[in-house]
Amino acid sequence: MSTWQEKAAAKRASLTALIPDAVKLPFLPSADVLDVSTYPLDSILSPLELEITETADVGVLLEKMSTGVWTATEVLLAYYKRALAAHQLVNCLTEIFIEQGLARAKELDEHFKKTGKTVGPLHGLPVSLKDQIDVKGVELTMGYVGWIGRVSEENSVCAQILLDQGAVIYVRTNIPQALMFGESVNNVFGTTSNPFNRNLTCGGSSGGEGALVAMKGSPIGVGSDLGGSVRIPAAFQGLYGLRPSYNRVPYCGSTNSMEGQEGIPSVLGPISSSVNGLKIFLKAMADAKPWLSDPVALRLPWNEDAYKLADHGGEGAKLCFAILWDDGNCKPMPPYIRALEQTKKALEAEGHTVIDWVPYESAAGWKIVSDIYNADGGQDISQDCALSGEPRMGWVLDENAKRLSTYEYWQVCRAKNAFIKKHLDHWNNTASSTGTGRPVDAYHRSWPHGKPQYIYYTGLSNLCDYSTGVFPVTACDPTVDVKLPAHEFRSDVDKMVYEQYDPEYFRGAPISLQCIGKKNEEEAVIRMTEIVDAAVKKSKA
Amino acid sequence: MSTWQEKAAAKRASLTALIPDAVKLPFLPSADVLDVSTYPLDSILSPLELEITETADVGVLLEKMSTGVWTATEVLLAYYKRALAAHQLVNCLTEIFIEQGLARAKELDEHFKKTGKTVGPLHGLPVSLKDQIDVKGVELTMGYVGWIGRVSEENSVCAQILLDQGAVIYVRTNIPQALMFGESVNNVFGTTSNPFNRNLTCGGSSGGEGALVAMKGSPIGVGSDLGGSVRIPAAFQGLYGLRPSYNRVPYCGSTNSMEGQEGIPSVLGPISSSVNGLKIFLKAMADAKPWLSDPVALRLPWNEDAYKLADHGGEGAKLCFAILWDDGNCKPMPPYIRALEQTKKALEAEGHTVIDWVPYESAAGWKIVSDIYNADGGQDISQDCALSGEPRMGWVLDENAKRLSTYEYWQVCRAKNAFIKKHLDHWNNTASSTGTGRPVDAYHRSWPHGKPQYIYYTGLSNLCDYSTGVFPVTACDPTVDVKLPAHEFRSDVDKMVYEQYDPEYFRGAPISLQCIGKKNEEEAVIRMTEIVDAAVKKSKA
Repeated sequence: MSTWQEKAAAKRASLTALIPDAVKLPFLPSADVLDVSTYPLDSILSPLELEITETADVGVLLEKMSTGVWTATEVLLAYYKRALAAHQLVNCLTEIFIEQGLARAKELDEHFKKTGKTVGPLHGLPVSLKDQIDVKGVELTMGYVGWIGRVSEENSVCAQILLDQGAVIYVRTNIPQALMFGESVNNVFGTTSNPFNRNLTCGGSSGGEGALVAMKGSPIGVGSDLGGSVRIPAAFQGLYGLRPSYNRVPYCGSTNSMEGQEGIPSVLGPISSSVNGLKIFLKAMADAKPWLSDPVALRLPWNEDAYKLADHGGEGAKLCFAILWDDGNCKPMPPYIRALEQTKKALEAEGHTVIDWVPYESAAGWKIVSDIYNADGGQDISQDCALSGEPRMGWVLDENAKRLSTYEYWQVCRAKNAFIKKHLDHWNNTASSTGTGRPVDAYHRSWPHGKPQYIYYTGLSNLCDYSTGVFPVTACDPTVDVKLPAHEFRSDVDKMVYEQYDPEYFRGAPISLQCIGKKNEEEAVIRMTEIVDAAVKKSKA
Repeated sequence: MSTWQEKAAAKRASLTALIPDAVKLPFLPSADVLDVSTYPLDSILSPLELEITETADVGVLLEKMSTGVWTATEVLLAYYKRALAAHQLVNCLTEIFIEQGLARAKELDEHFKKTGKTVGPLHGLPVSLKDQIDVKGVELTMGYVGWIGRVSEENSVCAQILLDQGAVIYVRTNIPQALMFGESVNNVFGTTSNPFNRNLTCGGSSGGEGALVAMKGSPIGVGSDLGGSVRIPAAFQGLYGLRPSYNRVPYCGSTNSMEGQEGIPSVLGPISSSVNGLKIFLKAMADAKPWLSDPVALRLPWNEDAYKLADHGGEGAKLCFAILWDDGNCKPMPPYIRALEQTKKALEAEGHTVIDWVPYESAAGWKIVSDIYNADGGQDISQDCALSGEPRMGWVLDENAKRLSTYEYWQVCRAKNAFIKKHLDHWNNTASSTGTGRPVDAYHRSWPHGKPQYIYYTGLSNLCDYSTGVFPVTACDPTVDVKLPAHEFRSDVDKMVYEQYDPEYFRGAPISLQCIGKKNEEEAVIRMTEIVDAAVKKSKA
């Protein structure tokens, strides 16, 4: 019987063994090199492979394949090599199954050669998956030592739809233990770093995705979001992300922590290097009718009218955005304030209205979120750790949380329902001040950065099931994002986050914001995220 | 301090006191008169009032008001009087708030007089409500003695939308204690009987609605359905009913038992004297955008394409129905078998395909439903009973159920998710035998009748979130629905239901069936229920 440490080491070694010599990095940067995103890869990737992986725009990538410029195999091999390079620099992968990917790419290429047509809207697109999305024949450990050796018997519905729509899957990516905190470290695979500043976490729980996509080892990845787990890594890497509302993207057949917890359901969503990746992903998913194979997936086809903002004045209409400068419980770090100001100016320059969002009972909302996460007193996680004897990690869950009875848990869910009604009313009540006659079309939230984090800036969307996009604005610049004098702290986390901020330490960290719409507004939120993103980009041009 | 019995008696007396002398029945039928549905009402209702309340067809009723033939006040007073008459015969009401109704009817009539236009699609429609749907200023006890005196401060979203769409609300109706069994009796209001055979229950938990609508004291009522609570009373009274999928009709602001239980959410749905009542109700609800005021309501406008069966071959296409003759756990009583045979012939005569539905693990499914209902070990109900000291009643919940921990409850929910995936796959796998190339478009389930009941014939739709309609087929006829020889019993409930059946005892009991579609298929299920209903009616003509 080997120890859990030995089992974990063996698993890591078997992963490392999958890296061919030809893709081994010639040297590893020393620890004081914080930004590894610019590590030169010309000794590993061909000029074509560099060109492919530098494409960034998912739409362009698809077009190159649908017009026969690049084959699926060429594209896959380019991303695969770059993914392995990324892994050596930031430790982002958990599983590599290139044989499956190459087999699928070959099928796609043969189909295209024979018919001149693509297999589906995602023809040839390499998609990476968070280490909880089951792929037939591939081991799934979700970072638990005790799960090593578990091989999935079926594709998850998500993986199957991706394949059916023409995508190619080839790697899975790192996560925190139990998926339950905002950075990516576990006892099997260790820590994934932020490619832009290795002082910092890549975020989590879909942190491996964030790091991999940022390193251009994948143009788009699928993560999950229970409290910000898609959005935090998208944001910390300056990428685009989408938290769809409950049951839009099929979760069935994927694995999760605390399964059966439905008070705040986790959702799957994309992280992409380009904003159009969000639409491409969601449309391909919805068009595949996931409700035919996922019993809880909503029967919601892609809604082009909603994307054209039918409920927000129609295409081209001026929108009203509200900005949350501070949630009243925890003040954002200085670069986020600057990003909000920059975004406000950019939107106003485009003729949109920008008002202030008045926060609603943030501490109370966060308590409900936290009570739901902790309702089993950590029993699920403890049992999975006990399988191997590995220690429990993390900071979102309270290690001393009481194991609630079902009745007590129902009272928390009841409080949740009362809260989200009040939050919706609060939103609706903004109609008098928007200037459009509509309640706020979308609003922006900032959030602090560091570890441990305060995650209610993202968690509110999970609580209220608001569809939410993430877009990059700027990066931390110590010359302008100076530390402010201490304010009167409203909470322990407020003090913690204030103290965490050190401009020099955060140098170069991408600074991103969220665009929050209402429940079941994925299409509108994607469009609004595109609008804000374009405005921000224009303001910088 | 009065006893709970005294408090309940006072509440009942205050309700009785609201019946004006002019609406008091001249005599009460003796106990051996089982069918009270034909009690003569000409001494209480005018010929016009009789004509109005005999209209049955909700569409016609609305048209009479939208064309100015009848005023909202006339219509309301007619149904109000008949509701009071019904109450004296079957004890179906819990609250009478005619002043509110008359005030609204007056507003509607004035608006119509002034503009020639209706206020909304439900202009003037009297709608009765189950005793859990909050109405501002009206007491809501939900049958608990300890809740007597609780007055709602706000309209529930459902009641508000009904009013906004032009409906008039005026009474609420009886329910079982805690809403948790399939007949309607509690310690405050006592028992509601089946108007067609007072030997039998009106069903539940929306049993007061079923009895009231059957007695023509309301053309349409709103009930809730957690395990069959809309469908059972609709069926037991030969009415039409709809169980929408989760979060289609806004529940927010209504009161419920075991609030916070979201493993199998309860849903609101209509019970109506006419099949078009189902469409009229759901369309009016969806068109009112309930997601603007209910934070969990799905953003699903009325979908006319779905109603036209776009996903089922389109308008006029031949459908494939499957019939569940027996769920493998509990054999239906003889009249249900006859109703299924009759429906099969009627559908085949219209050119539709009818195949046999193969049941899927009914005992296992019912165990999951039951485990979720019982997960708090009855704590919620016990606490509400303890408020007054009244005794606990009922038979759906297990009085000896263990109080599960949250972790244990999550395991039940996890088992549920695995089960409903298998059930969906089972459905999809019928595609090879339907003759349409589609999986079964809808299927029919029968269910036994009596008390206590086995409710998995309805409960499965709650478990899997299948949209489900109810329609009447026939009535129990002792001359043809003879008792069968005992079969080999598969379960205790199978034996119980077999033993309960006495053809003479069930004489005249309406026999109804369900039309079951998939999750979020309300529109298609309404249309298919109309199609089956028309075929059955035609076959009888």
